[in-house]
Amino acid sequence: MTANNHFETGSSSGSSKAWGGRFADVPDARLEAFNASVAFDVRMIREDIRGSIAHARMLGARGIIAPDEATTLERGLWQVLDEYERREFALTIADEDVHTGVERRLREITGAVAGKLHTGRSRNDQVANDHRLWTRRQLVLVAEGLVAFGEALLALAKHYPDAIMPGYTHLQRAQPVLVAHHVQAYVEMLLRDVERVRQAWRRTNVLALGSSALAGTSYPIDREMVAHDLGFDGVTMNSLDGVSDRDFVLDALYACAMIGMHISRLSEEIILWSSGEFRFLELADRFSTGSSIMPQKKNADIAELGRGKSGRLYGNLMAMLTTMKGMPLAYNKDMQEDKEGLQDSFDSILALLDVFPPMMQSARFNVDVMAAAAVAGFTLATDAADVLAKHGVPFREAHQVIGTLVARCIAEGTAFADLSDEQWADIHPVFAEERPPVDASTSVSSRNIIGGTAPDQVEATRAGQHVALLEARDWIADRLRVDNQLFERDA
Amino acid sequence: MTANNHFETGSSSGSSKAWGGRFADVPDARLEAFNASVAFDVRMIREDIRGSIAHARMLGARGIIAPDEATTLERGLWQVLDEYERREFALTIADEDVHTGVERRLREITGAVAGKLHTGRSRNDQVANDHRLWTRRQLVLVAEGLVAFGEALLALAKHYPDAIMPGYTHLQRAQPVLVAHHVQAYVEMLLRDVERVRQAWRRTNVLALGSSALAGTSYPIDREMVAHDLGFDGVTMNSLDGVSDRDFVLDALYACAMIGMHISRLSEEIILWSSGEFRFLELADRFSTGSSIMPQKKNADIAELGRGKSGRLYGNLMAMLTTMKGMPLAYNKDMQEDKEGLQDSFDSILALLDVFPPMMQSARFNVDVMAAAAVAGFTLATDAADVLAKHGVPFREAHQVIGTLVARCIAEGTAFADLSDEQWADIHPVFAEERPPVDASTSVSSRNIIGGTAPDQVEATRAGQHVALLEARDWIADRLRVDNQLFERDA
Amino acid sequence: MTANNHFETGSSSGSSKAWGGRFADVPDARLEAFNASVAFDVRMIREDIRGSIAHARMLGARGIIAPDEATTLERGLWQVLDEYERREFALTIADEDVHTGVERRLREITGAVAGKLHTGRSRNDQVANDHRLWTRRQLVLVAEGLVAFGEALLALAKHYPDAIMPGYTHLQRAQPVLVAHHVQAYVEMLLRDVERVRQAWRRTNVLALGSSALAGTSYPIDREMVAHDLGFDGVTMNSLDGVSDRDFVLDALYACAMIGMHISRLSEEIILWSSGEFRFLELADRFSTGSSIMPQKKNADIAELGRGKSGRLYGNLMAMLTTMKGMPLAYNKDMQEDKEGLQDSFDSILALLDVFPPMMQSARFNVDVMAAAAVAGFTLATDAADVLAKHGVPFREAHQVIGTLVARCIAEGTAFADLSDEQWADIHPVFAEERPPVDASTSVSSRNIIGGTAPDQVEATRAGQHVALLEARDWIADRLRVDNQLFERDA
Amino acid sequence: MTANNHFETGSSSGSSKAWGGRFADVPDARLEAFNASVAFDVRMIREDIRGSIAHARMLGARGIIAPDEATTLERGLWQVLDEYERREFALTIADEDVHTGVERRLREITGAVAGKLHTGRSRNDQVANDHRLWTRRQLVLVAEGLVAFGEALLALAKHYPDAIMPGYTHLQRAQPVLVAHHVQAYVEMLLRDVERVRQAWRRTNVLALGSSALAGTSYPIDREMVAHDLGFDGVTMNSLDGVSDRDFVLDALYACAMIGMHISRLSEEIILWSSGEFRFLELADRFSTGSSIMPQKKNADIAELGRGKSGRLYGNLMAMLTTMKGMPLAYNKDMQEDKEGLQDSFDSILALLDVFPPMMQSARFNVDVMAAAAVAGFTLATDAADVLAKHGVPFREAHQVIGTLVARCIAEGTAFADLSDEQWADIHPVFAEERPPVDASTSVSSRNIIGGTAPDQVEATRAGQHVALLEARDWIADRLRVDNQLFERDA
Repeated sequence: MTANNHFETGSSSGSSKAWGGRFADVPDARLEAFNASVAFDVRMIREDIRGSIAHARMLGARGIIAPDEATTLERGLWQVLDEYERREFALTIADEDVHTGVERRLREITGAVAGKLHTGRSRNDQVANDHRLWTRRQLVLVAEGLVAFGEALLALAKHYPDAIMPGYTHLQRAQPVLVAHHVQAYVEMLLRDVERVRQAWRRTNVLALGSSALAGTSYPIDREMVAHDLGFDGVTMNSLDGVSDRDFVLDALYACAMIGMHISRLSEEIILWSSGEFRFLELADRFSTGSSIMPQKKNADIAELGRGKSGRLYGNLMAMLTTMKGMPLAYNKDMQEDKEGLQDSFDSILALLDVFPPMMQSARFNVDVMAAAAVAGFTLATDAADVLAKHGVPFREAHQVIGTLVARCIAEGTAFADLSDEQWADIHPVFAEERPPVDASTSVSSRNIIGGTAPDQVEATRAGQHVALLEARDWIADRLRVDNQLFERDA
Repeated sequence: MTANNHFETGSSSGSSKAWGGRFADVPDARLEAFNASVAFDVRMIREDIRGSIAHARMLGARGIIAPDEATTLERGLWQVLDEYERREFALTIADEDVHTGVERRLREITGAVAGKLHTGRSRNDQVANDHRLWTRRQLVLVAEGLVAFGEALLALAKHYPDAIMPGYTHLQRAQPVLVAHHVQAYVEMLLRDVERVRQAWRRTNVLALGSSALAGTSYPIDREMVAHDLGFDGVTMNSLDGVSDRDFVLDALYACAMIGMHISRLSEEIILWSSGEFRFLELADRFSTGSSIMPQKKNADIAELGRGKSGRLYGNLMAMLTTMKGMPLAYNKDMQEDKEGLQDSFDSILALLDVFPPMMQSARFNVDVMAAAAVAGFTLATDAADVLAKHGVPFREAHQVIGTLVARCIAEGTAFADLSDEQWADIHPVFAEERPPVDASTSVSSRNIIGGTAPDQVEATRAGQHVALLEARDWIADRLRVDNQLFERDA
Repeated sequence: MTANNHFETGSSSGSSKAWGGRFADVPDARLEAFNASVAFDVRMIREDIRGSIAHARMLGARGIIAPDEATTLERGLWQVLDEYERREFALTIADEDVHTGVERRLREITGAVAGKLHTGRSRNDQVANDHRLWTRRQLVLVAEGLVAFGEALLALAKHYPDAIMPGYTHLQRAQPVLVAHHVQAYVEMLLRDVERVRQAWRRTNVLALGSSALAGTSYPIDREMVAHDLGFDGVTMNSLDGVSDRDFVLDALYACAMIGMHISRLSEEIILWSSGEFRFLELADRFSTGSSIMPQKKNADIAELGRGKSGRLYGNLMAMLTTMKGMPLAYNKDMQEDKEGLQDSFDSILALLDVFPPMMQSARFNVDVMAAAAVAGFTLATDAADVLAKHGVPFREAHQVIGTLVARCIAEGTAFADLSDEQWADIHPVFAEERPPVDASTSVSSRNIIGGTAPDQVEATRAGQHVALLEARDWIADRLRVDNQLFERDA
Repeated sequence: MTANNHFETGSSSGSSKAWGGRFADVPDARLEAFNASVAFDVRMIREDIRGSIAHARMLGARGIIAPDEATTLERGLWQVLDEYERREFALTIADEDVHTGVERRLREITGAVAGKLHTGRSRNDQVANDHRLWTRRQLVLVAEGLVAFGEALLALAKHYPDAIMPGYTHLQRAQPVLVAHHVQAYVEMLLRDVERVRQAWRRTNVLALGSSALAGTSYPIDREMVAHDLGFDGVTMNSLDGVSDRDFVLDALYACAMIGMHISRLSEEIILWSSGEFRFLELADRFSTGSSIMPQKKNADIAELGRGKSGRLYGNLMAMLTTMKGMPLAYNKDMQEDKEGLQDSFDSILALLDVFPPMMQSARFNVDVMAAAAVAGFTLATDAADVLAKHGVPFREAHQVIGTLVARCIAEGTAFADLSDEQWADIHPVFAEERPPVDASTSVSSRNIIGGTAPDQVEATRAGQHVALLEARDWIADRLRVDNQLFERDA
């Protein structure tokens, strides 16, 4: 995943660190290269600039700097952002990090007043704040992708209202189920994912600015004003925690890992269903690939990557958990490792959520193949046992009777549908009264309880899922509106 | 961690599986040993029995079995539980799993009617339901431990209202902070942990029974009645998802991993503070250990284990994420791997939360050592720079001036407190007007913003934390009451 | 996995720690329970005792203790082991760890001289040494299991010398291969596993005793004598590293994780092949399980657990990597976390290697089903393209021609075998000269290069694998002989 | 880490996939973007081209293509490489992967004959081969970095032959040790790392070409000729394994994770030693950083990143283990995930090994501070106990005596050095005969056994380490020579 960011490799000559006074020697080039975060924290440049604008406004409002200084800073910051977006200004490795780079350009534009922007603020709380702003938005985008995916699956389910397939346990055909029921199982997972993403969002959406380096600041800053300006729900209540808390990063990484796990499950099924043995699903050619050597091949590459990418999503979570292990208070440089993995997880999830919905919507189920498979392999055996049980035979005994019957049929190469009334009656007297169902739709319709595969239940569940997705859409729209308003220039 | 469970190693002779009918051969002993879950799912025996009671009651109420059969089953099940708790009945390896073992004993007590208990139910939904009931309770116990830990830390913080220590970044002394401020940073973490645990609880507290094997059941069961009987907030809405969803296990494992991460951070600090170099903290002898060879040693073993156990907590999370990767619908035997890791995580967290509060409460801070360290290493340099900045010197320039001063002091072996008024005035004209603070409490008091280290702010934060813990206590009490009522015999 | 160890839960009353002198207070019961390792390090009791015997012998030989004292200690230690194995002596939680427990019993047997055993030794190097001895043996047992598994697979391969199946890429039928070729791919993996296990063994098989607590000892001990007595290849060369190195644990955990990964791959295939869609494989009834509700089900539970257990094997590796992260020199209590995970990994791998060979050997391939599938899905398309290419058509062009042909056949519902000579000639003039193969064995036989699927090549590879397994068997036998000799009482 | 590779974002218009024939529709742009590996596999372009040259040479030598065709292909391939290195030719996203991109340019240069290069080869074995060639070289570079680091540490150790510091267990001062002894403990770790890297290299250095798509090829190719041309030690013996084996990737990731773990341990110590509390180490200014707000700060950022980067190294290992879990034979697209993580791990390790040696060599130990700390905290207590034990007092009793003495000294605020002869004699009659040592060098010198901290032993170990590093240097030089020769144009 190549980020479309504006960053130039360059030498450090002329660089001016934010921390030189105490040092007798200039930094070693190897330290600079190793230490610099600018190659990846450039992705937060919009958040960095907007956070600085809020800080400048507040400094002015509280009289910590003069009102015109605040105005100068704000104008200069918008200009830096404009220049960056027009690609007239770029960061270099010598900038060390995005904060320094932005401030460098700001100084070129505004002169010495730029030096006042850092009043009552430290890079420690600044980077935490930028990261929260950026993560907050990514989480909303992930939620948006999840909802779109859920809607695509609901559309697919709705498109096959009557289709029946074998339900599996242990990858053995078990009982017939509606295709829609199967598809909707994944919507349940996505709804839990949306919930996790929103909970992660809530813990993210807290202002860290004002923690300063670690202890707070002696300037009479107004943290609630800044929080309000930036659309945060609240402020961190302990400065040491404020600069060193990375729970929000981990919550996001965990939410992504869970989404990836769910996608890996669906991917496995797509791969199975596309195989020559299952033949349940035909992906559109435009979402399939071929082989450089085998002319007949049509591969479900996207699903394979969807399965394989669970690896990096788990790995990124493990990475950050490891990095945070044993960190003493407060900020430590180790925490700089919090960005690349999260960016990679978000990029991966958003790419997955971009490609899976159209792939699923353009796919075609082989309804006949599925229907035939749905009654193969004695999937109606449970129904037969249930008939006995409903006539008072203890279920354990009914299970034994039908199990023995299945074994006999396998040995004889017959199916339930081949058995005559007399044969059924021989098997158990109850069957003289009531023959077990031998078609899948009777079986499916009979499972008519909440969450069961009977058509009415499946439709009811779908209706509920639809409502839940709509509600999530509203939440997302609100969040995006708030985020977008932050960047309206006359705001 | 040895669970105090009642389980006997035994041979399978005479075992009667729940699934024999179709099979021509008895299971190989190696399969039995490898496959059996009874050694660990025995820990859910109370939940298994109570879930069966709710199922039996409902079967009776709905007329699926006769009312007196339901009564017989309920009485029998209570008896099995009583016998188990009195250690008169034990499970064996031949029981395969806890469900089979309980049913075996039930059959011995009630005779053939025991075979009706499994009507409209499968081991797939039964085990999911047992696991949810068990996990639900463990989560509440974890929340209880977290709250107790938080309270212990608040008591500790309150005990040192004025004590000052150096705050650190990069493990370098940075600025003075209140000891209480530092301690309370951990309470913030614990409060987030409580929130995560409660959110995990909410996703756990859903009835899975009724999913049957995978498709629901054709019996007219009443899932909402069972949910109500067992104190669940709702029911699963898709049977395929219902038997194969292990998100609740992962949410719990993640919550435990995060708690473990936070404890590893505090542990690192306890270890540092107990070292001969820091000497900030003296653990009580009864919470310390010695060396078999070095008579002088006094080690913070508990904190070291508190740090090291993050490993298994992370590992258990990774294990279950791996197991769930690529699982097709619905139930697969792989999912049996969901128990031991979770048990280990809960056991570890509960043990940690058992031992950390008394260890912290019996520890003694060396207030004088901390106070001396709080002003060593030029921790007041920021305050000096702030004085300049408040007189209009751009912060970047002020930083440079003080940085150079620090370098000079280091070279000369002097401290800020050694400088005369003239020397200060020489450094910068502003200092002729206002000398920077040279004592820690002035510095600490000046950081008087929300979340800052000034005493008033620290107290305000503590008050808020106290309220949050109280609210959590209420929630916990309610949850435990519900859980305990489930097992009242005349309920 | 319940270890068959002898350990009793008990109170600490009367316990006498190895480190009491400096302490004013007795340990808190919670510390004892939390801190004690005896519940799991009891599994190294044989190694602990044998290591002590070697140490005692050396102390006597070097005159550090009197010869008769050494003899008394050795006799006493053998007696402790005998008593333990006869279950006359058990460890309790109050023993803290296995070392203390053994020494407690030794003191009861020999009196005060037991106090001399710890001369020139610390628990830090003792536990490292015990763990190396124990791990060393487990690694050999794992190697033995791997070899047995490899032999079982070779026997299976040999049993189906001519059987052909579809080879897959992307789970799409790609080209026909010999069943033996497919099976032998797993033997290649196992041989790499054996290599990794042996390399781990080599890094494990080093004496750590003599490092003492961390710095070595001032007693004139003879480390090489002890190494020789215990069958170690060498001694650690730095005492700080000697007590804190856990690379050998990680190497073993990694080797187990890799074995688990390979088994998860084979397991996935067994599950696929056992499905109603593939029907390639029929597991023996005695290695299959059924369903409590669906009488027709026959599940490949072992393979599912074989797939799922990769989770805990990965998790245990991650756990120990996490624990070791950031550990300063030398021993830290965190390192006590090195045992349970490794025990669990070894137990899991040995259980897998116990059950997989008989499961594979009792399974039956459905040769006819596989053969039919081997030519379905245009798996001979590459062969057709190769015919063109061998007549000078650039391969890319040949690929295009056959790809188009496949698309036409799919559209028309025909197969290559249905095409007449004229039709072939129409497709490309080359086919007028040479028709492409339409049977799988011609295709298979044509891939006659090293590592290819032609029967001769498959046999040659099998012969090489056989030799490699034999060589490994020799190595294993030597190692077990050395280990067993350690415990011969008149040694 | 930004790779310095030549890759242009571009549209797919006019792209010509290697697999179009069977497909009715062009690929969706989302599939292309999601599926393409060219953004990261471009890093293997040299290996890809060189592998193709070896393949072309062999095709010519075996008469599979005409000799002049082989020559044309080889010349064309060198030209592609030259153009790439001169930045005259770049890959685009439409190229899908590096193989396709190179072949595209080759076709532009040589015309239709380019289509013959793919004879007897597939992208499946080609990518495996490229990856092995690339990984092989990176492993040698890692080994080179490890050796350079080891040499830097040995130089450091040699520079402080007599300096003494406290050795620690549980981060408590335990016994005095030589600084050189402590430093050399890390060289032991690095030597094990070198061994692991070399073992990983050996498993990597095997030719996968010739496996073709999965089954081998029907062309009479000469795999051993290609292996010899490319400097491989052998060829894969099973084609299914050959295209799907990623053990070599995992071995490399594991080796990197272990190096990262060791570096995290040293980093933790550097951070501790640089703290105001320890003051053992002074990093050079040019390898330190400052604070944007606290003018006095001097931070060990490199060591913090060295500690924190263990996270991503563990994460990358976990990621690939996850991806490979449950992969059926043979190649699956999931395996494309094998590159970015490995590249990141190699980049991270090489960056660490670039910056740590000069940082360590430019650091200065505060010898006096360390020496003072070495005797503080009763670190000579063990020596005192040993004196008793050497006079026949059982060690356990001696430990108790000295433990009590330590407790008394702490209570009285005295040290061993303060005790008079009479006081010693009072403590135990043995001390009337022999007073225990009260200086660190006597203690250090007394630990004169293999691996102990006595100066002679430390020097002997260092000599052995030196030899081991030299031997590794030779191996590395040989490997690099072979690799470099591959790219000599007249080779």
